[in-house]
Amino acid sequence: MRPSQRQPDEMRAVSLERGVVKYAEGSCFVKFGETHVLVTASLEERLPPWLKGQGKGWVTAEYGMLPRATHSRTRREAASGKQGGRTVEIQRLIGRSVRTIVDLQALGERQITIDCDVIQADGGTRTASITGAWVALADCLAWMKTRDMFKTDAKVLRDHVAAVSCGVFRGTAVLDLDYAEDSEADTDANFVMTGSGNIIEVQGTAEKEPFSEEQLLALLALARKGTGKLIELQKMAIG
Amino acid sequence: MRPSQRQPDEMRAVSLERGVVKYAEGSCFVKFGETHVLVTASLEERLPPWLKGQGKGWVTAEYGMLPRATHSRTRREAASGKQGGRTVEIQRLIGRSVRTIVDLQALGERQITIDCDVIQADGGTRTASITGAWVALADCLAWMKTRDMFKTDAKVLRDHVAAVSCGVFRGTAVLDLDYAEDSEADTDANFVMTGSGNIIEVQGTAEKEPFSEEQLLALLALARKGTGKLIELQKMAIG
Amino acid sequence: MRPSQRQPDEMRAVSLERGVVKYAEGSCFVKFGETHVLVTASLEERLPPWLKGQGKGWVTAEYGMLPRATHSRTRREAASGKQGGRTVEIQRLIGRSVRTIVDLQALGERQITIDCDVIQADGGTRTASITGAWVALADCLAWMKTRDMFKTDAKVLRDHVAAVSCGVFRGTAVLDLDYAEDSEADTDANFVMTGSGNIIEVQGTAEKEPFSEEQLLALLALARKGTGKLIELQKMAIG
Amino acid sequence: MRPSQRQPDEMRAVSLERGVVKYAEGSCFVKFGETHVLVTASLEERLPPWLKGQGKGWVTAEYGMLPRATHSRTRREAASGKQGGRTVEIQRLIGRSVRTIVDLQALGERQITIDCDVIQADGGTRTASITGAWVALADCLAWMKTRDMFKTDAKVLRDHVAAVSCGVFRGTAVLDLDYAEDSEADTDANFVMTGSGNIIEVQGTAEKEPFSEEQLLALLALARKGTGKLIELQKMAIG
Amino acid sequence: MRPSQRQPDEMRAVSLERGVVKYAEGSCFVKFGETHVLVTASLEERLPPWLKGQGKGWVTAEYGMLPRATHSRTRREAASGKQGGRTVEIQRLIGRSVRTIVDLQALGERQITIDCDVIQADGGTRTASITGAWVALADCLAWMKTRDMFKTDAKVLRDHVAAVSCGVFRGTAVLDLDYAEDSEADTDANFVMTGSGNIIEVQGTAEKEPFSEEQLLALLALARKGTGKLIELQKMAIG
Amino acid sequence: MRPSQRQPDEMRAVSLERGVVKYAEGSCFVKFGETHVLVTASLEERLPPWLKGQGKGWVTAEYGMLPRATHSRTRREAASGKQGGRTVEIQRLIGRSVRTIVDLQALGERQITIDCDVIQADGGTRTASITGAWVALADCLAWMKTRDMFKTDAKVLRDHVAAVSCGVFRGTAVLDLDYAEDSEADTDANFVMTGSGNIIEVQGTAEKEPFSEEQLLALLALARKGTGKLIELQKMAIG
Repeated sequence: MRPSQRQPDEMRAVSLERGVVKYAEGSCFVKFGETHVLVTASLEERLPPWLKGQGKGWVTAEYGMLPRATHSRTRREAASGKQGGRTVEIQRLIGRSVRTIVDLQALGERQITIDCDVIQADGGTRTASITGAWVALADCLAWMKTRDMFKTDAKVLRDHVAAVSCGVFRGTAVLDLDYAEDSEADTDANFVMTGSGNIIEVQGTAEKEPFSEEQLLALLALARKGTGKLIELQKMAIG
Repeated sequence: MRPSQRQPDEMRAVSLERGVVKYAEGSCFVKFGETHVLVTASLEERLPPWLKGQGKGWVTAEYGMLPRATHSRTRREAASGKQGGRTVEIQRLIGRSVRTIVDLQALGERQITIDCDVIQADGGTRTASITGAWVALADCLAWMKTRDMFKTDAKVLRDHVAAVSCGVFRGTAVLDLDYAEDSEADTDANFVMTGSGNIIEVQGTAEKEPFSEEQLLALLALARKGTGKLIELQKMAIG
Repeated sequence: MRPSQRQPDEMRAVSLERGVVKYAEGSCFVKFGETHVLVTASLEERLPPWLKGQGKGWVTAEYGMLPRATHSRTRREAASGKQGGRTVEIQRLIGRSVRTIVDLQALGERQITIDCDVIQADGGTRTASITGAWVALADCLAWMKTRDMFKTDAKVLRDHVAAVSCGVFRGTAVLDLDYAEDSEADTDANFVMTGSGNIIEVQGTAEKEPFSEEQLLALLALARKGTGKLIELQKMAIG
Repeated sequence: MRPSQRQPDEMRAVSLERGVVKYAEGSCFVKFGETHVLVTASLEERLPPWLKGQGKGWVTAEYGMLPRATHSRTRREAASGKQGGRTVEIQRLIGRSVRTIVDLQALGERQITIDCDVIQADGGTRTASITGAWVALADCLAWMKTRDMFKTDAKVLRDHVAAVSCGVFRGTAVLDLDYAEDSEADTDANFVMTGSGNIIEVQGTAEKEPFSEEQLLALLALARKGTGKLIELQKMAIG
Repeated sequence: MRPSQRQPDEMRAVSLERGVVKYAEGSCFVKFGETHVLVTASLEERLPPWLKGQGKGWVTAEYGMLPRATHSRTRREAASGKQGGRTVEIQRLIGRSVRTIVDLQALGERQITIDCDVIQADGGTRTASITGAWVALADCLAWMKTRDMFKTDAKVLRDHVAAVSCGVFRGTAVLDLDYAEDSEADTDANFVMTGSGNIIEVQGTAEKEPFSEEQLLALLALARKGTGKLIELQKMAIG
Repeated sequence: MRPSQRQPDEMRAVSLERGVVKYAEGSCFVKFGETHVLVTASLEERLPPWLKGQGKGWVTAEYGMLPRATHSRTRREAASGKQGGRTVEIQRLIGRSVRTIVDLQALGERQITIDCDVIQADGGTRTASITGAWVALADCLAWMKTRDMFKTDAKVLRDHVAAVSCGVFRGTAVLDLDYAEDSEADTDANFVMTGSGNIIEVQGTAEKEPFSEEQLLALLALARKGTGKLIELQKMAIG
């Protein structure tokens, strides 16, 4: 029934490849099927002005798409002179998601910037970005730990975070929408969840018809299953 | 327990005043307590380029805050040269919310722009905006109907839409957060709902600790109550 | 003869409502007939870089129009990425006008920003803004005085300032042009005047035919009458 | 008494040199003492969108200063990404001034753009620009006439226009302020006048103390004398 | 002697991988050692306005660097609101280089955009971009030929183009500078050459000391050798 | 054979006029035939942030064209909100060229900005700019020396720098292309050279057909002749 022949609760093939960019303190090339995102985590010894002197650090994110990541070429945001609304919305979501699972006090007065650049887009770029961001972030924090940048017993990375989209496609709740499904779905929801199955962020949108509490719960159940599997893959990735 | 002395399921005083700007086809001055937003609906006989020739209309929204709507003055976005990330995120949410309940085919090849300008901000500006936007939109469509701009039996406005924020404040789920609560809440969720209690959009964010399915459902129950009341007020407003 | 049936030397109904925005140190909602402007005065403990360390303060102004303040919707300047030429010209005029009547030395090293946001425009938005700005500014200075921010005998506010437009409409000099008159007038002049009837700024423009010294003097006489009345209203407003 | 040793009613040496840029349809290098401005008039067979199809033309102006036209280098506006408030204000004044003396109907559906670029600034750049603009404009219209672009009997250029600044300097009304006077003057007024001594635009500003009607009239009398002389020079320039 | 232990006339390991992005009409992932660039060629049925109706096509290029392609993170150009000077300079060079070897008449009224995005930068990103661009372009033209978009006998791709940098490093002329060499070199020259050894573009810069004709010729000889080898690799890549 | 009737190795009439702008520490109005550029050198006691505290100075350049320097009016970059690609490319070239011949250590922690503004453009604006820049720079350094800003024996200006364009026009190598030749040339190369005939920068571009080593050498020989003559003129100019 799904264009991709997948079962309703079946994700696309997911891979998380670490250390793909040699300069970054952490990096991950994440694939959710044909959606490919390069994620880097960059450590900088500086802070946004409003945070200075509070003994805390910061984690933020930026998102971009290469012009030909999509079916037809989209205009380069650097050339058009600003980031579009969709870009801004997505990078704020990624930033909030990874920030929640970091102990900013333990991080110290430093900033980690997560850059998510979409090489190829086939639906779910924001959820792939968040899932890969955790791996890049974990590697960045490990790099720092090796260099004794934290107090001995600090637990800077407090939890896993992974994200997946679910939606109602032709009347059925399905997991991990690809572009063909996404563009036709009645409802589309992105769930950002922790290792323990709690919710960091939920964003559900009725693309056509408003949805019911029951449908929301059905999507949530799929998302819990999906993020559970993604977190297993994260654990395997960082070995 | 709440700084405002309200019960957990008690909203602030809400008022919806119509026809406040004489040129606009529809307008509403909405107050959620000390949060005051001026909403206008503007009809234009033009369309975004990518929609031309499809026999459909468009509804979009823009959001802004007057510089001194807030405790301390914020920089005017027109002067800084771009809309900030928060502004972009909010106006996209408002646009999606009102678009969902309009039959774009029946609207015809025209655009309605909803402008939401915050005069005074005390938490919940986006939910007040959406709730007032429905009134301005309803008046705009009524203005058009009077001028025979629709087919006789067209039902352009398909449903009500109202929005409210809920959150977990000091361990308790509460309805309609004001600024004092919002800045301290563990979890903050915005619900955009229809007259029949279905969900158009849900955005829940763990500000501090990830939240559980049970908490999400508790917030949803409050939101259903709150939006139900808001929709009653909308009905009274348009008389 | 005037579209509004007013006598040549008759102003529109003017109202000056104080304290309309709760966070601002001073505010005024000013109406010149159907022209409605919200003015706030914001105190900030900072200065433009080029003024630092001179023991003086600064008063500046910004101006904006809500997109649907006008007959047809105008594009939001925050969205178009810059303030238009008309906006820049007007806010510089407002800034100069209020700055002239403040003793910047007595103000001390602080900045007061006057924000004038047009809610509804029917001609004369800049003169209404200046007239309302005086009220907001007076309240802001009173707020500061209450908090002992000035030397005991300082006279920070040196005079009143009010402004009105005059023009030659169908051959007759008339006071306080509304939009219908303004768009048809031969000559249009804005006068910014003090309580003693002196001139702070005069800007006269021949919209169609150059005007003579006699016409300029006739407009000035009307303006003196108009600003005299406006200053009486200011005195009543601050009671 | 004046730093320049000039009499109160004495202008600086003025020169108007035509044909200084070979591509422009009209051009003038204007000097008011040490203030040097290069003015060009460019004819284009296009119109601003809002004027199309009305059988009328348009005259507009742009103004700029070379970075080292001033005592210390000012930032290049092309590099800072926008025209400053002063630039916008001045170019709008120049545009209005020259537009008033052109019969836009007779001009036909074309646009003439006046570019005023300040090579060296010593006060009065806007008045020098307007005075030189008339010469460049006259040459542009003559160029068009030679090519039979107007109806036989059309009188496209309806009048002269010239401008001069006057001010109250150390208590005395003086004509044509240079930078040393301008930065110290109590009152500064720019007058744009026609050949017949009528006023196209007057902009008077109290830099320190509000000024009286008598002072305004004294400045106007000086301005009439000054612009009279400038118009004589224009007549000599176009031979 | 070279930090990389290479011989003076020895290039880094070069690889040209085709078809790496599924949507683009042509693509190439090019590696010059640790410098990695993703190049796509996008066909669009549109033209820059100034070229319309001339029966000719256009080839242009854009260049970007992912923020963490470099040792320390560089600011994202989309976020800073404009492309920097270096970016502009490089993308213009790439555009000119590939445009020269395409028969724009035979291409027809279409535009091909070459996007070069640097994933990892270790010197020579512009030369790697040009070399990879040829492969992406060749594939794009082959894709078009398969779809009968050209006249039967059209030879749209007229030649190969490849580029390499050479420089004087510690007194010796060396081929294909990496970052360690580039940042220390006395002279740095980029050569863009054809299959027959002719020059499309040469850009030589004295980083420290001016260089002589003899040195230029020594660099040119190295470049001819290097581009010869690169063109062999291009031939192997397109099989 | 050349449109200008010049011999292949004949430059246009060149003039270098010093001291043309009274505020600048150094200035030169340079003419290469009908190409006229005003160059100023401005000394500032500040540095780009990344250079602070290294005991070295900086020399940089900006370039602009007045809107009507060209056959048809080009849009003012200050109005369009950014410098175009061609402008950026040229000003970077000028900056590198003059920086190379200044001893930045001896200059001390100061910045000299070279502004090149094209008054009239007839080909070769960048080479005229560089040639004139040397004169303005020399005068600026002399101005500083007079004020004892350098160590006694410092040799801040290490060499001359001049630039000229050469090209292959209708099969013949010619010196100093004007616009008529430039727009038709097969190959166009700009050479920036020192007093001793060495190369600071070479930029050769095949406008139509790739060019050979022999052609490059022929152009270089012409350029050496041309820059030799320009440097003689520089010596005469600074007397």
